[in-house]
Amino acid sequence: MHSLLQDANTILSDAIQSVLPQTAVQQALSQTQFRGKLHVIAVGKAAWTMAKAAFDTLGEQIEHGIVLTKYLHNKGTIPKFQLLEAGHPVMDENGIRATETILQHVQNLTEEDTILFLLSGGGSSLFEKPAGALSLTDIQSVNRQLLACGANIVEINTVRKHLSAVKGGRFAALCAPAKVYTIALSDILGDPVDAIASGPTCPDASTCADALAIIEKYHLTLTPAIMQQIQEETPKTLPNANIQIIGSVSALCQSAARCAQTLGYTPFILSTMLDCEAKEAGRFFGSLAQTWQKGESFFPSKCAVICGGETVVHLTGNGKGGRNQELALAAVPYLDGMSQAVLVAVGSDGTDGPTDAAGAIVDGTTAQRLQDLGIFVDTVLSNNDAYHALQQVDSLVITGPTGTNVNDLYFLLLDADSEKESQKKNA
Amino acid sequence: MHSLLQDANTILSDAIQSVLPQTAVQQALSQTQFRGKLHVIAVGKAAWTMAKAAFDTLGEQIEHGIVLTKYLHNKGTIPKFQLLEAGHPVMDENGIRATETILQHVQNLTEEDTILFLLSGGGSSLFEKPAGALSLTDIQSVNRQLLACGANIVEINTVRKHLSAVKGGRFAALCAPAKVYTIALSDILGDPVDAIASGPTCPDASTCADALAIIEKYHLTLTPAIMQQIQEETPKTLPNANIQIIGSVSALCQSAARCAQTLGYTPFILSTMLDCEAKEAGRFFGSLAQTWQKGESFFPSKCAVICGGETVVHLTGNGKGGRNQELALAAVPYLDGMSQAVLVAVGSDGTDGPTDAAGAIVDGTTAQRLQDLGIFVDTVLSNNDAYHALQQVDSLVITGPTGTNVNDLYFLLLDADSEKESQKKNA
Repeated sequence: MHSLLQDANTILSDAIQSVLPQTAVQQALSQTQFRGKLHVIAVGKAAWTMAKAAFDTLGEQIEHGIVLTKYLHNKGTIPKFQLLEAGHPVMDENGIRATETILQHVQNLTEEDTILFLLSGGGSSLFEKPAGALSLTDIQSVNRQLLACGANIVEINTVRKHLSAVKGGRFAALCAPAKVYTIALSDILGDPVDAIASGPTCPDASTCADALAIIEKYHLTLTPAIMQQIQEETPKTLPNANIQIIGSVSALCQSAARCAQTLGYTPFILSTMLDCEAKEAGRFFGSLAQTWQKGESFFPSKCAVICGGETVVHLTGNGKGGRNQELALAAVPYLDGMSQAVLVAVGSDGTDGPTDAAGAIVDGTTAQRLQDLGIFVDTVLSNNDAYHALQQVDSLVITGPTGTNVNDLYFLLLDADSEKESQKKNA
Repeated sequence: MHSLLQDANTILSDAIQSVLPQTAVQQALSQTQFRGKLHVIAVGKAAWTMAKAAFDTLGEQIEHGIVLTKYLHNKGTIPKFQLLEAGHPVMDENGIRATETILQHVQNLTEEDTILFLLSGGGSSLFEKPAGALSLTDIQSVNRQLLACGANIVEINTVRKHLSAVKGGRFAALCAPAKVYTIALSDILGDPVDAIASGPTCPDASTCADALAIIEKYHLTLTPAIMQQIQEETPKTLPNANIQIIGSVSALCQSAARCAQTLGYTPFILSTMLDCEAKEAGRFFGSLAQTWQKGESFFPSKCAVICGGETVVHLTGNGKGGRNQELALAAVPYLDGMSQAVLVAVGSDGTDGPTDAAGAIVDGTTAQRLQDLGIFVDTVLSNNDAYHALQQVDSLVITGPTGTNVNDLYFLLLDADSEKESQKKNA
């Protein structure tokens, strides 16, 4: 008989393990057969780890590889791979040069060639070549205007794609007739494939007309060269391209569900796209636990209620914390005294806000322990200081950087029998 | 084949009908047999309606009855009943006099007598007699200090009970040896029986020591007479008393679940105690719908996701709206374009905030209709102006005052087949 806390830790580490780039890339590759000459291009913040996993799996089958990642993110040589680095989140000339190196490599390929394109977050600023006769300065000036005018991320990407030689599916078009097999590590809620790194290998759903409408809507002033370039359409079909999403927040939730089930908890995934205010999500979870305890919810006596997503925090104070720590802390008063409930909220990247914690695990004892120290949950939340409160009651989860980033995992473990068990032990 | 909107309206009116005082009292009484002399005492804002329902059900069996309600809340004579009115929410001398009338009536009862005590919200200020030698002025001065010092409602009630001759179970003790059968209409989340009108017929879980600790905690300055009175203990057991909670938010949710099931939706009650920020609860519901649509949640193809509670709104603007309207409106962007989802958020009393609406019903068409009018959901919510936005797209639910108050009902109807059905119709 394990305790709820032990089970929570097991589920958590199991779920994060399953979405590590290494694990996820190897699993995806084990299901695929490549023929002909295999070229590996890895772009993004997790590029090195993904390339290493590909080399460990495919080894001699790889003809040649290129890694393009953020400065200081290459962690050692990989046989057959050329390692490049560039600026992120601010695009720089090294990114343009590295992209040119990649484009030269995919020139003159034949149907016998396959590109294995390993994509992760951050690719949008690392992998760029201005379209036509445009310069990096042109792109930067449009980006500045887009950010300043209040356009949303979908609108920004629509314009960007039409000004890039590689985004919006254009990279895959340049690789034709070679086949392009993309494995993308998703860091965006809902896994919209054309949004990860602005979709270099994904048919673009947005049109020139959409891009022009956005320019008009926000009254952007663009040079004639940019206005001309933006009217060149992006690819709407890419018969040579194929994309598989790995390591998404959905995979994170599904792994947690599988592991919970193994441990005897009936799993219920409610949402994989939770994006509301962190502390309010915590209160929602807290009320689920209270209602379950009263016997008024449909949740059975032993279960795991699972959500994934990326909640937000609106700062009202100047303490130290993160969205996962706030979510967990806000649920604490609701769980007060319950011996049958544990709530976990953790960022899969191991970093929650500007702290060294990944998130927090709280249970029915946390409220009393905080109270004994004279710490009031509402005051702490108003000051956005969850870190120090949770630290004092040993409720932080500290994993260090995990090497992946597929948003957050939240789960509530409920077990009506755990109270009887703990009473037996104490008897 | 009904539309989702029709089904939502059916479930809503069915659920509210089931928690009307009239319906709920009659249902509770139909399950009980009274012997001997039956006295009916009805106290609270819904006292008249509850007494009328009791008379309609028990009629001639009733020996005598008294109704004590808020000014202007008696709606006509009821045979055998004496109708009294007093101040609410501010206690007044008429309340003290009416309480004295009731106490005189329950004096000298025997084991052959039964009191049917019909209790509803508001009873705490209507039904009061200061304990021992205390005066109304003493009680009012303590109340003022309690409200000013920041004590929470549990703390306030703990002190109040120890200074009252009728609260904290003391009324039931005064009725002994007569039996006291209480039917309480709950307006408090979680239905804590000893908190409804400060529990005149409920054993008091709080002690003199608790009351003294609160006085010390908040440094209240009380007269010697009050300090002496507070040390007299409230009843901890009441063998002659029996309480049944009716018309609670749980009953509201359960009725909605039953009706949804009748219409073919698998019902899932998640929470009966939701109390987070209204618009964040709406976003949570929205993400449930989106995740369901992606096929990533456990919710089946046709279901009703049900919550009850009382969410809160923190004002940031000066528009017109209410918590239920904000909850529904916040979910609108999430449901955008879905033909298989409807969200309902309605206050059971028919009044949501300072508006004539009870709440709102939104679906996948609402976002587009708002956009066509140039209305932006985020802007509206910042200005707390949900009423005007929802009014323009005909999404308000207007019921008028329902005569009950058991908090709010929120439910999401999901039906994967409804899209096909609506396509068939249009074909």
